Amino acid sequence: MDSFRALIAEVLADHLNAPGAASVGTPSVPALMAELGRRARTAARRVALATPEEKNAALHAMAARIRAQAGEILAANAEDLADAQAKGQSGAFIDRLILNPERVEAIAEAVENIAALPDPVGRVLARFERPNGLQIERVATPLGVIGVIFESRPNVTADAGALCLKAGNAAILRAGSESFRTSLAIAEAMGEGLEQAGLPADAIRLVPTRDRAAVGAMLAGLDGNIDVIVPRGGKSLVARVQEEARVPVFAHLEGLNHVYVHGEASLEMAKRIVLNAKMRRTGVCGAAETLLVDRACAETHLRPLVSVLLEAGCAVRGDEAVQAADPRVTPASEEDWRTEYLDAIISARIVDGLDEAIGHIETYGSHHTDSIVTEDGATAERFMAEVDSAIVLHNASTQFADGGEFGFGAEIGIATGRMHARGPVGVEQLTSFKYRIRGSGQTRP
Amino acid sequence: MDSFRALIAEVLADHLNAPGAASVGTPSVPALMAELGRRARTAARRVALATPEEKNAALHAMAARIRAQAGEILAANAEDLADAQAKGQSGAFIDRLILNPERVEAIAEAVENIAALPDPVGRVLARFERPNGLQIERVATPLGVIGVIFESRPNVTADAGALCLKAGNAAILRAGSESFRTSLAIAEAMGEGLEQAGLPADAIRLVPTRDRAAVGAMLAGLDGNIDVIVPRGGKSLVARVQEEARVPVFAHLEGLNHVYVHGEASLEMAKRIVLNAKMRRTGVCGAAETLLVDRACAETHLRPLVSVLLEAGCAVRGDEAVQAADPRVTPASEEDWRTEYLDAIISARIVDGLDEAIGHIETYGSHHTDSIVTEDGATAERFMAEVDSAIVLHNASTQFADGGEFGFGAEIGIATGRMHARGPVGVEQLTSFKYRIRGSGQTRP
Repeated sequence: MDSFRALIAEVLADHLNAPGAASVGTPSVPALMAELGRRARTAARRVALATPEEKNAALHAMAARIRAQAGEILAANAEDLADAQAKGQSGAFIDRLILNPERVEAIAEAVENIAALPDPVGRVLARFERPNGLQIERVATPLGVIGVIFESRPNVTADAGALCLKAGNAAILRAGSESFRTSLAIAEAMGEGLEQAGLPADAIRLVPTRDRAAVGAMLAGLDGNIDVIVPRGGKSLVARVQEEARVPVFAHLEGLNHVYVHGEASLEMAKRIVLNAKMRRTGVCGAAETLLVDRACAETHLRPLVSVLLEAGCAVRGDEAVQAADPRVTPASEEDWRTEYLDAIISARIVDGLDEAIGHIETYGSHHTDSIVTEDGATAERFMAEVDSAIVLHNASTQFADGGEFGFGAEIGIATGRMHARGPVGVEQLTSFKYRIRGSGQTRP
Repeated sequence: MDSFRALIAEVLADHLNAPGAASVGTPSVPALMAELGRRARTAARRVALATPEEKNAALHAMAARIRAQAGEILAANAEDLADAQAKGQSGAFIDRLILNPERVEAIAEAVENIAALPDPVGRVLARFERPNGLQIERVATPLGVIGVIFESRPNVTADAGALCLKAGNAAILRAGSESFRTSLAIAEAMGEGLEQAGLPADAIRLVPTRDRAAVGAMLAGLDGNIDVIVPRGGKSLVARVQEEARVPVFAHLEGLNHVYVHGEASLEMAKRIVLNAKMRRTGVCGAAETLLVDRACAETHLRPLVSVLLEAGCAVRGDEAVQAADPRVTPASEEDWRTEYLDAIISARIVDGLDEAIGHIETYGSHHTDSIVTEDGATAERFMAEVDSAIVLHNASTQFADGGEFGFGAEIGIATGRMHARGPVGVEQLTSFKYRIRGSGQTRP
C-alpha cells in the first residue's frame, strides 16, 4: 500500500462509519485534498494522451467491474439507505438514493454507452492555410481536471467519471454525505477498471471523506489543480458553488422556462406542447414554469389551454384574465413569475404581443430553455434571436432540454452561463482546444 | 445633460486634473461603477441584436470621429506626455504612450479593418437533425459585457472597443492612469460614432476616473454586469487580475516559449527559425526565451546556433555543453529556465531526445507557444500532441503567435487558459453560443 492509499485509509477510518463527524475538520483532510489535486493533475496528463482505444478499454473494464461488484455496491447502498431512513428522509430522497440489481446494471450500461460515443479529443475544429503557407489547425484537447460535486444520486459517480475520462480529463468526485458508501463502492470499481486498462486510478477519484472542508478545498481550486467545477444537485448546492468557486463553473441555478403561445399558434399544437412541457415530468430542469398567452388568441386559446392543464392535475396561478377563464385558477403574485415550482403548478398570464413576451422572459427567466408556439415563421425567428437563453425552441416542448435528446449520448449537466459550455454539457463541451501549426521553415517578417 | 453624464462630469472634475488623487477613494466612484455596469448590460442587449450593417456603420462613424477629433486627441496626449515626462518615465514607456497624426490615422484605420471582418454573430457552428425531426442549430451569440483593463497604449481604447462591438458585446474600458486623458478623448470619439449610428454610447465606455477602486469593482464583476475581463499589459497587471477577478479572465501571464531543435533538424532552417523566434522582436509575448538542442545533433548544430544568436547581439546563458560551445556563453541558473526575458537574452541547454524536451517545456513553460524544428514528421506530430500549449508549431517561428498572423484580423490578446478562449483572442472568441431548435409540434415521450 503506497502512502496515498495509507492517507485515504486513515481518512476513511475516521469518516466512513462516523457520519456524525461529517462537519468536524480533521487535520489530514487538507493534506488529503492537496494530494488528490496533485495526483489528478498527473493523471490528467496521462489520460489526455491516452488513445481512444485505451479510454474505451478502461470504460468497458469499469462497466465489468461494476457488474462484478454489484453485491458490494448494493451492500454499501443498504447501509446508506438505513442511515437515510433513520434520519427520516423523504420518499423522493430515498428513491434517488436506492439501488437494486437493475439500477446497477443500468449504471454499467451507461458507462458502456459513453464508451460508444465518438472520441471528442483530437477533432479538427477548424483548418486554414495562410498566404505564407502555414497550415493552422484548431484541435480539440482535454480540459484538464474536472471537479464534480453531487448530492444523493450515486449513479453520478459512474456517469460523471466516465464522461470526464472519455474527454481525456481527470475527475475528482465529491458525493453527497447520504450516498457516500454507495458512491465509494462504485468509485472503487471504476478505479480497478482504469488500472486493468493500464490507466491511473487517480484519473477518477471519489473524495474519501464526508468532511465538508473537502468541498471548500475543491471550490478554491486545489492550488490550481481543478480547472472547472460541475455541481449536480439542488438549488442551494448550485448557489453555494456559483457563489464561492474560484474556478469556472458549468451549471444552471434553475430552469425557469416559458412557453409563449403566440397569436398565430395552432391551438391543438399549443395544447400538446404546453401539457408536455409542464406535466411530462415536473421535477426536471426543462419543465415549463410559466405560460404566456398572446392577447391576440386569448379568446380562442386561453380557456382550452388552462383546461388541459387543470384536467391533468396541474394547479394554475394566473393574472386576472387567466382567472376569468376558469374558476379553478388562483391569483398569481409577483413572486409566482420568479418561481421554479418543479411541481404540478404553472403560472400563466396574457401578454400583448412578442415584445411583451420577450420582455417577461428576460425579466423573470433564467436563460435556460424557452419555447414559442406559432405558425408564423418570422415571429418564431425573432423570438429565437432575441430570447437570450441557452436553448430556444419553435413548436417543440421545453422538455427536450437534455443532452440525450440533443444526441450528445450523455450529459454532465446543463449550463446557463455564457463561458465555454452552454446548454447540455456533453463530452464535446468537456474539451478545450489548441492550435497546431505546420510550416516549412517560415519566419515572421 | 442626463444624470449619468452629470455623475461622470462630477467624477471627472475630481480626477482629470488631479492625478495625485488617483489612489484616494471618492464617495461617488462605487455609484459610478455600478451605474456603468447597469448601463453596459442594457447596451449589451441592444448591440447583441444589432445587425452587421448597424455595427459596421457605427465602426465607420467611430473612425471618422477619431479622424475629425485628431486635434483634441493629440492635445490630450500632449498633457499625458507632459505628466509622464515630469515623472521621469522611461523611453519605452513614452514610446508606448505617444501619439502623432500618423498614429491617430492608424487607430482609425484599425477600427475600419475591424468593420471589414466577417460578422461573428449568428454563425451556425453546428447543425443536426434528430430522428424525431427536430432541427437543432448551435449559433454564435455575443458574450455580453467585456471589461478591458489596460496600461499605457491608448490605441487599446479603440482596438478593444471596436473588437467587442463587432462581436455584439458592450465594453467597459479601464485605461492606465498615464494614458487617461488620451484614452478619454478617443473614447469620446467612439461614443459619438456609436450615437451617430443609432447605437448607445454606453456600449463602449471608458471608466472616467483614475481611482484604483474602479479596478477592484471591475474585478468583482460589477454585480454580475461584467462577463469576462481582459487585462492588457505587463505581468504585474495580469497577475493581479488573475488573482483577484471573480469573473473569467482571458489572458496570458507570460510567454515563456521554447524552440526545440530536434536531432533531425535542418541546420539552416533551425538557424533561421531560432534567430527569428528570439530576435525579430524581443519584447513580444511570442518571442522565444529558451533554446533546447537535441544531443543527437549538438555536435553539428549547437555551435552554429549559438553563434548566430551571439552575432545578432543576443546574450546566451547555457548549461555546461552550451558554455563549452562558445566562450561568450555565460552559465544558466535554474532561475533562467523560468525567466521570460523579453529582451535580447536566451537560455539554452542540451536535451536527450523528445521526451526530455517535452519534460523541460512542461516543467518550465507557460503553455503559450512552443516550436519544434525537425525533418521527422512523426516526431513533430508527437511534439505537437504532447506539448500542452495554446500554440504548437512545427518548422516555424514562435513569433507567429499573433491574431493577425492567424488571419483573425485583430486580436484583443492571447489566452493561455483552457476555458472558452485559447491562443489569439479574435472576434470569434468574443462570442458564446445558443441552441435554436425548430420543430413541428414535437413533444417528448
